[in-house]
Amino acid sequence: MPTEPQIAEPGATHETDVIVVGAGPCGLFNVFELGLLDLKTHLVDILDRPGGQCAELYPEKPIYDIPALPVVTGQELTDRLIEQIAPFDPVFHLSQMAVALEKRADDRWQLTTDAGTVLIAPVVVISAGGGSFQPKKPPIPGIEAYEDQSVFYAVRKMEAFRDKRLVIAGGGDSALDWTLNLLPVAKSVTLIHRRPEFRAAPDSVNKMLARVEAGEMEFRVGQIAGLEGGDGQLTGVRLRSDTGEDVLEADALLAFYGLTMKLGPVAEFGLNLHENLIPVDTEKFETSTSGIFAVGDINWYPGKLKLILSGFHEAALMAQAAFRICRPDAKLRFQYTTSSSELQKRLGVK
Amino acid sequence: MPTEPQIAEPGATHETDVIVVGAGPCGLFNVFELGLLDLKTHLVDILDRPGGQCAELYPEKPIYDIPALPVVTGQELTDRLIEQIAPFDPVFHLSQMAVALEKRADDRWQLTTDAGTVLIAPVVVISAGGGSFQPKKPPIPGIEAYEDQSVFYAVRKMEAFRDKRLVIAGGGDSALDWTLNLLPVAKSVTLIHRRPEFRAAPDSVNKMLARVEAGEMEFRVGQIAGLEGGDGQLTGVRLRSDTGEDVLEADALLAFYGLTMKLGPVAEFGLNLHENLIPVDTEKFETSTSGIFAVGDINWYPGKLKLILSGFHEAALMAQAAFRICRPDAKLRFQYTTSSSELQKRLGVK
Repeated sequence: MPTEPQIAEPGATHETDVIVVGAGPCGLFNVFELGLLDLKTHLVDILDRPGGQCAELYPEKPIYDIPALPVVTGQELTDRLIEQIAPFDPVFHLSQMAVALEKRADDRWQLTTDAGTVLIAPVVVISAGGGSFQPKKPPIPGIEAYEDQSVFYAVRKMEAFRDKRLVIAGGGDSALDWTLNLLPVAKSVTLIHRRPEFRAAPDSVNKMLARVEAGEMEFRVGQIAGLEGGDGQLTGVRLRSDTGEDVLEADALLAFYGLTMKLGPVAEFGLNLHENLIPVDTEKFETSTSGIFAVGDINWYPGKLKLILSGFHEAALMAQAAFRICRPDAKLRFQYTTSSSELQKRLGVK
Repeated sequence: MPTEPQIAEPGATHETDVIVVGAGPCGLFNVFELGLLDLKTHLVDILDRPGGQCAELYPEKPIYDIPALPVVTGQELTDRLIEQIAPFDPVFHLSQMAVALEKRADDRWQLTTDAGTVLIAPVVVISAGGGSFQPKKPPIPGIEAYEDQSVFYAVRKMEAFRDKRLVIAGGGDSALDWTLNLLPVAKSVTLIHRRPEFRAAPDSVNKMLARVEAGEMEFRVGQIAGLEGGDGQLTGVRLRSDTGEDVLEADALLAFYGLTMKLGPVAEFGLNLHENLIPVDTEKFETSTSGIFAVGDINWYPGKLKLILSGFHEAALMAQAAFRICRPDAKLRFQYTTSSSELQKRLGVK
């Protein structure tokens, strides 16, 4: 990334002008249009870095229809947008899911994440794309009883796994990366995958196999047949392989079976939904609830196309309306970045 | 320019899918969105090259609000768009003003330019920005009687001035460039400007002064006080200077007093206008007349901002509706450039 974005520790309370749910390309460009009007933004995203689908699903695949960028990869597009919004110093709340949105007595919105972060602002913009990327759960009977206590689908703090006996399941980058990262922290690590081939980067696979060779960890081919333990605390993971079934002693299971897209808690925000999309007007891209806007793939209006370039336009018109809510007594002047020294100052142009 | 655009000779008749009036950034991006749907485009612009206001008014000024391009000049933006649309091989009709738009008996539109070019298509998109750049006329009584016969504000064919005694008026790039270009063609050239300082590029000014020094042409400081001649044919230009008035013998006067923006003949196209803008819907960006669309700064709808990025979005939605008109029996499939091999083939991706 060309510029290091400001990432907040989870669990604190922040007041700001605008809360943006989703840090994909449209979520990021909201920050730019709001910033030109001197509005400050905090963003929440369930992924561990900005970029949304672009960076998660096709970081290296070329996109051809971003105007004036004949070819750009998802990761390059993300990097360019992060560079463009850097002057406005947005605050990112990553690896967190927005779980509740309530109106406060002071007429502002309060958004709470599943990591206990609380954001307070007069304006909320939902730019959640197709919804939240959520982990696919392994089809193991009774797994819910262990979730968030000894079974996890993401790592929020590595320290939580210190001196634990870990079983890590999966064959993609997340499984391999966390295997290598947690190895020095955990008491023991066993990686399990249903076959000896991996989707993960070959370099990570080679590093893992070298650790196995050195006797520092185990790798087993097989599938999880069940969990042992009680009261939410795992004691072992039952592994079914070609040679039969055995139990791996374990204090924690980390399962990385990929991500799936779900609308998620946004569905509970009290907005009128239309086939899992949020209807908005085309003047301000405001939802049926005043002060809540929707920009990008998640919104709907007549003619809507799920194109990144449409989200950019929506962000610009939304920002005008957000300004009127955040600064009811200020005069909104429409200015061009090419000619306005005020805008150029905000952009840090020398 | 990274790619050489296809420029048509004036005066011919062409049939195509879509006629775009205006070759500024939004005019150019129409070609891209139409091209993805396999629709062919001809563009008309009064300027002698693509780029519109961007390339004409601020070719070297940075623009900061094109998404994912933190800084780009007007010329760079134009070059990038020309590169992006090159796979769709648009045809440009330059230095021509769209003067008439009529519905044909076969239900298609017929657009005529002031250079006699005729374009026929089922769909017309007006992307004329603030209107046409038109030459500022010198405030000389009776000049209209000579216009297009012996007084000109643009050069369409240099041969028209072979062996003529020319007076060229102005101090900008157009005046200086045409002085130098026509010098080998004309019988004589006299450049006149109201003061000895020029807005034109210093290099052109130095070249012109060297030609004066060499006795190949004349430069006079002064203002045009009147024209002499009759029946549209000039015989002399009366020059008022510090030392009095005298007459420069002349067969033709070329006056380059800069450009001004006017809505121009678009106002006569029978579209409902709202303060010199063309109202459109926000689903298809179609005007009050079916088959005629307006994209970019020239259109109006609730929330409209005159931003280039908005024109890009408008172009994408317009293209869907244009397809339905041009290919009434075909099925329109919405596809992504990232994943569709059909779109990638049209884009020439290898």
